[in-house]
Amino acid sequence: MTFTDAEIAYLDSQLLGRLTTIDAQGRPQIRAVGVHYNPETRTIDVVGWGLAKSQKFRNASRNPEVAFIVDDLASTNPWRPRSVEIRGRAETLTGPGVSPWGDEVIRIHPRRVVAEGLDPSGDGRYNARDLPS
Amino acid sequence: MTFTDAEIAYLDSQLLGRLTTIDAQGRPQIRAVGVHYNPETRTIDVVGWGLAKSQKFRNASRNPEVAFIVDDLASTNPWRPRSVEIRGRAETLTGPGVSPWGDEVIRIHPRRVVAEGLDPSGDGRYNARDLPS
Repeated sequence: MTFTDAEIAYLDSQLLGRLTTIDAQGRPQIRAVGVHYNPETRTIDVVGWGLAKSQKFRNASRNPEVAFIVDDLASTNPWRPRSVEIRGRAETLTGPGVSPWGDEVIRIHPRRVVAEGLDPSGDGRYNARDLPS
Repeated sequence: MTFTDAEIAYLDSQLLGRLTTIDAQGRPQIRAVGVHYNPETRTIDVVGWGLAKSQKFRNASRNPEVAFIVDDLASTNPWRPRSVEIRGRAETLTGPGVSPWGDEVIRIHPRRVVAEGLDPSGDGRYNARDLPS
């Protein structure tokens, strides 16, 4: 199991995530992107218009180590942050139908997942785990 | 000028940003953090309980190259994303009063700022610029 049901429901409920890639100088860049969990491949698929020409696509092609986060505040009083962070390796693919959401994709294979605040009881439980590769 | 008035107003209006640091293996991690623009130092100050013991603090101490983003959707119909991305070098400081918001800080000195969608006219204008170091 890559993600729990609560994590998948949370990923599917959110519109924006943030993808970090590393450039040719070893420096991070971070961009807001859509959130697409692909249940067939159990990956996060980052898609978008002109993706293959973007710096993040070039970065991920050169260095597949990426990180991705989806987060928000379930409430501010009490302060209840929620997040799913994913660290993993990216594949960069182009071609008809490579992803359900587009013909160009940065596909993130999770290696580590850190979830916080997704327990419905609201206890802010922190769940960090490494996945078999 | 490090940030425009519109960028500062936007940073001050948002509760959450995301900070990327690079670990000892050269892999990115990304965490949700509060947003604090420090007008005295013209930096982003990342603070928080137990910060100096966190992985992001250790990462930034070892490798000062970081990236930070604040983003949201001004509206979904029409789709109007807004964001300020900051790439720069971090200082990690501890001691009484090192930051207005805490005694432990990851202080981000911007080297590059990429702002999107902050023009009140809503034209999604993209403003990327490098800053003198």
